[in-house]
Amino acid sequence: MIKNCLKLKDLSIQEITKILAVAEKCKDGAYRNVLTDKIVANLFFEPSTRTHYSFNVAEERLGMKVINFDPASSSLQKGESFYDTVKTFEALGIDAVVIRDQEDEYYNKLLGKIDIPIINAGDGVKDHPSQSLLDLMTIKEEFNTFKGIKVAVIGDIIHSRVAHTNIEVMERLGMECYISGPKEYEDDAYRFIDLATALKTMDVIMLLRIQHERHLSESAMSPDEYHLAYGLTLERVALMKDKAIILHPAPFNRNIELSDDVVECSKSRIFKQMRNGVYIRMALLLRSLLSSSEWEKY
Amino acid sequence: MIKNCLKLKDLSIQEITKILAVAEKCKDGAYRNVLTDKIVANLFFEPSTRTHYSFNVAEERLGMKVINFDPASSSLQKGESFYDTVKTFEALGIDAVVIRDQEDEYYNKLLGKIDIPIINAGDGVKDHPSQSLLDLMTIKEEFNTFKGIKVAVIGDIIHSRVAHTNIEVMERLGMECYISGPKEYEDDAYRFIDLATALKTMDVIMLLRIQHERHLSESAMSPDEYHLAYGLTLERVALMKDKAIILHPAPFNRNIELSDDVVECSKSRIFKQMRNGVYIRMALLLRSLLSSSEWEKY
Amino acid sequence: MIKNCLKLKDLSIQEITKILAVAEKCKDGAYRNVLTDKIVANLFFEPSTRTHYSFNVAEERLGMKVINFDPASSSLQKGESFYDTVKTFEALGIDAVVIRDQEDEYYNKLLGKIDIPIINAGDGVKDHPSQSLLDLMTIKEEFNTFKGIKVAVIGDIIHSRVAHTNIEVMERLGMECYISGPKEYEDDAYRFIDLATALKTMDVIMLLRIQHERHLSESAMSPDEYHLAYGLTLERVALMKDKAIILHPAPFNRNIELSDDVVECSKSRIFKQMRNGVYIRMALLLRSLLSSSEWEKY
Repeated sequence: MIKNCLKLKDLSIQEITKILAVAEKCKDGAYRNVLTDKIVANLFFEPSTRTHYSFNVAEERLGMKVINFDPASSSLQKGESFYDTVKTFEALGIDAVVIRDQEDEYYNKLLGKIDIPIINAGDGVKDHPSQSLLDLMTIKEEFNTFKGIKVAVIGDIIHSRVAHTNIEVMERLGMECYISGPKEYEDDAYRFIDLATALKTMDVIMLLRIQHERHLSESAMSPDEYHLAYGLTLERVALMKDKAIILHPAPFNRNIELSDDVVECSKSRIFKQMRNGVYIRMALLLRSLLSSSEWEKY
Repeated sequence: MIKNCLKLKDLSIQEITKILAVAEKCKDGAYRNVLTDKIVANLFFEPSTRTHYSFNVAEERLGMKVINFDPASSSLQKGESFYDTVKTFEALGIDAVVIRDQEDEYYNKLLGKIDIPIINAGDGVKDHPSQSLLDLMTIKEEFNTFKGIKVAVIGDIIHSRVAHTNIEVMERLGMECYISGPKEYEDDAYRFIDLATALKTMDVIMLLRIQHERHLSESAMSPDEYHLAYGLTLERVALMKDKAIILHPAPFNRNIELSDDVVECSKSRIFKQMRNGVYIRMALLLRSLLSSSEWEKY
Repeated sequence: MIKNCLKLKDLSIQEITKILAVAEKCKDGAYRNVLTDKIVANLFFEPSTRTHYSFNVAEERLGMKVINFDPASSSLQKGESFYDTVKTFEALGIDAVVIRDQEDEYYNKLLGKIDIPIINAGDGVKDHPSQSLLDLMTIKEEFNTFKGIKVAVIGDIIHSRVAHTNIEVMERLGMECYISGPKEYEDDAYRFIDLATALKTMDVIMLLRIQHERHLSESAMSPDEYHLAYGLTLERVALMKDKAIILHPAPFNRNIELSDDVVECSKSRIFKQMRNGVYIRMALLLRSLLSSSEWEKY
């Protein structure tokens, strides 16, 4: 059976716990160069820095052979389709593909038609499982549990793949989840909390990227107005609980959703998230490429 | 002596047979990581998916160190020439260069001036030796001989590098070659056969890509009209001989030169061609980088 | 202590001597695959062929794991900053970054804020230490000393990063340095010499690239006029001393600062410079990534 990683909803609590445990072992230096006979292709059909190069580093740490697909110099320029491009990499004997694409659930076009595991590095506004898992790893390292931990997701909930995936899985793990920020970005499916209360009561403030080119225009708010109303400043950070932390998937807009001096403040775990992302991706690659019995032993 | 691979005409029947034999051994899992001390540079001055990444996978399977040149972020942007770019890679100590360029016989600018092997990954509309060899490998695997095998090449013969190279070598190997398709694309050097007869009598239907942006306009035929007149549909496939097969170098235009459902039909060897391409390229790299005496033993 | 390589001024004569000595050992085949557990990221924010791929080859020769950042498909496209991009690579666990950027002293934004060594592959019009070192290596191989060797740098002194770095270090090493070429490009800080005298008296003629799109317009001279007045032709080469040599950092403009037939003439060391560049970059990577006590032993 092919072990894809397409969306977090597909993963049981038990599987998530296993992935986080293997990721921690990777962080302790385990599993270097254990996949030296495997070739992986990174197929990023959208721009990416963190996710792309984080997978790239994870693959290198595992000793894999890595093919980085460059859409701009590919036959996509001659009109070749997404499906035919991915099928080509399968035909070339690649052992697994890491894919990011702008289309929601792009993988439905592939399922049942390719025989190698797909690791989803982000599909449209739907899922971004490795991002959610690195958030969980960072939260777990901080509080040593998920049960009862309070989180508010602040920002453009509607357009964020991270928000939807995260809230579902965090609730499943026993966390108490809220959303906050401008009303225009709200999603009725979730509990709303005002920013002032969120700052005082949450354990985790999870900021989202404001995609200002698209979204501030909809909300008729300038970047400065957004920052004034909802941006995380050191003054607002000072209201947070002692052990509370700040997460952001990045890239972040300095002085829009958070002020410049908050990025590397003592409560920020933003760069720690990036570091943890490498270990999560190592774990996901191991899960997809080891046999089930090997994986159980890891 | 430098062992280039520039055009198939330069290769004797004996050499082709040797390359195909080594490629089959590569397919059986031989020769992994035998070139770990060699560095190769892939210099693709034109967009490519299959050829570029197929060489890349072949190089990785051989354990080579791989440099992928990106023209868009290179000094070509400051006006540096093709010749000076290739000479630079030679100066950097690269052991072999794989080159695709839009100019026919670009390698004439380099011969006698660089001291490392050139493997031609396609020059203008002239040659594409690794593509021809993978076609041959796929035909050989199917029929276990070349003698008397009948092939019709269908489509834009004039503009296709594959057609010219292939017909010359296939005739040399004892195959019976025809061309078919619109009269505008014909080349008087070859025997013409009408599509209906081709379907009923050929062992191999070798489709070519219609470069519709350029060529359909010349023929004053719309893509739909072309598909109606010459496109390979399941109905037409049904007319083919029992053991006949379909080849296409890809990228293909679905619903122009072949219909959607033909791409992965039981007679299609299109994805098998791509898979074989990796082994052919492994063999070509071994041929260029091993000593002659080592190569003979392979 | 982090061992950056930012500008040649920071390196003592003793350190330069050490780097050149290690580079010569690398050229003799030493130090292959000694950094197999290290990951390096090449962050080129400007187009480059020689410097980028020269570092790439050096890294591969050392057995490193290499990440090549592609700005065009990165989050820079979503507005992410230079600083946040570099910080991201640090967070991903990269062991060293090689950076080229168009901004003078870009590294001032990073110093004290990242904990991994930066190797400067060119900053604006200021420094290009690995280029200067490969020039020195080439001069040393030729004359076996720096003391008293006479060099004239010819061309666009003002806009050249190479000129400034080189003259400072060459004077420090005891060389006698002059500048020549059009008055518009002169820099009062240096001794001027007319071309005719330079040709007859210098040991090294160091040509600079004329960035004609920008600079010839300023000087109101056409490329042909420049070539006539200052271009190095075979006739002018014939005036040079017997053992004198020609250097050029490349990319060069054929038939502007030098004529076509001079590029590969017997006095030209242009492609030798490129080859030496790989060994210099191996030495710089070793210096940044080995412990001080290991480095001393190399």
